[in-house]
Amino acid sequence: MKINAFSDVCLRVVMLLAGEPSADLMTTAVIAERVGTPYNHVSKAVIQLRELGLVESVRGRAGGVRISAAGRGVTAGWLLRKLDTRSDVAECESPHGDCPLRDGCGLRGALRRARGAFYAELDDVVIAALAPRRHSGTVPVNVTLRSLAETVR
Amino acid sequence: MKINAFSDVCLRVVMLLAGEPSADLMTTAVIAERVGTPYNHVSKAVIQLRELGLVESVRGRAGGVRISAAGRGVTAGWLLRKLDTRSDVAECESPHGDCPLRDGCGLRGALRRARGAFYAELDDVVIAALAPRRHSGTVPVNVTLRSLAETVR
Repeated sequence: MKINAFSDVCLRVVMLLAGEPSADLMTTAVIAERVGTPYNHVSKAVIQLRELGLVESVRGRAGGVRISAAGRGVTAGWLLRKLDTRSDVAECESPHGDCPLRDGCGLRGALRRARGAFYAELDDVVIAALAPRRHSGTVPVNVTLRSLAETVR
Repeated sequence: MKINAFSDVCLRVVMLLAGEPSADLMTTAVIAERVGTPYNHVSKAVIQLRELGLVESVRGRAGGVRISAAGRGVTAGWLLRKLDTRSDVAECESPHGDCPLRDGCGLRGALRRARGAFYAELDDVVIAALAPRRHSGTVPVNVTLRSLAETVR
C-alpha cells in the first residue's frame, strides 16, 4: 500500500519549507530541485498547499513561497485526508471497469475502516516537527554563527 | 492511499473462490471473467495464492482452482502484509531517484507505523466471511435445492 504521488510531493514540500530555520522565500524551481521532483508537479503541489492555507506566496522577482503558521502546525493525518480524493482503497470502481464483486462485498467497508486507522495514527504527527533540519551536519561558518545568534537572542 | 494492483487482484480471487458454496474447480479464464481482470494478471495472482497455500489447483482438462482450508480462514491483514513488498509507504526510494529529504526524515517512520495500524485493523477480517455469495438474489431452482439439501444435511 502507498500514498498517492501527489500527496507524496505535497508532504515533501511542507517538510522542506517547515525545515527552513527562517521564513525565507523559496522559488518553486529551488523547491523542485531540493525535493527531487519535476517542476510542474511541485508547482501544482504549491497551488494546492496555498489553497489549504499551508503556504504563503509572494509574487514578483524577489518572490517565492514560505510555510504559513497553519503549515507549521499541520499534521500528516489532516493533510493526507485532505489530499485523498479516492472513495475506495481498492479499485472497486475504476475507469477500466468496476469490480464485478462489489455488490454485497464486505471487504470494501473493512478497507475503508483500515484507511481510517491509517490516518488516525498520523493525526498527532506534526509534519514540521519531523522535518529534517536544513543545516544539520557540516555547515558553512556564517550559517552556524547566524544560528548561534538566533539561539542567543 | 490505496493497496497495490496485484493485492487488489489477489483479494478479488480469494473472495470469488471463497464465495463458492461448493469446492468446485474454476479455471483461470472463468476467474478472470468473474473478477473483471485480465487473464495474465489473474494467472500470476493464482500462482502467488497457491504458493501461499490459499488455493489448490488440479491439472488437466477438467482441472482448475479452488479455495483451500487455509484460504477460507485467511484474513485480509495477513494476505495484504504478505503481498506488500514495499519498504516505504511514500516514494522515499524509487528508481527515478531517492527523496533528498530522506536522511533525518521522521515522517518515514510515522508512515510505517500508520501502515501497521492499517493492517492491524484488517487482522480480524476473514476474507471468506465477507465475500459476496455467488447465488444470492434470483437463482436457478436446482441450485436452491442443492443449497437446501446441504442445509438440511
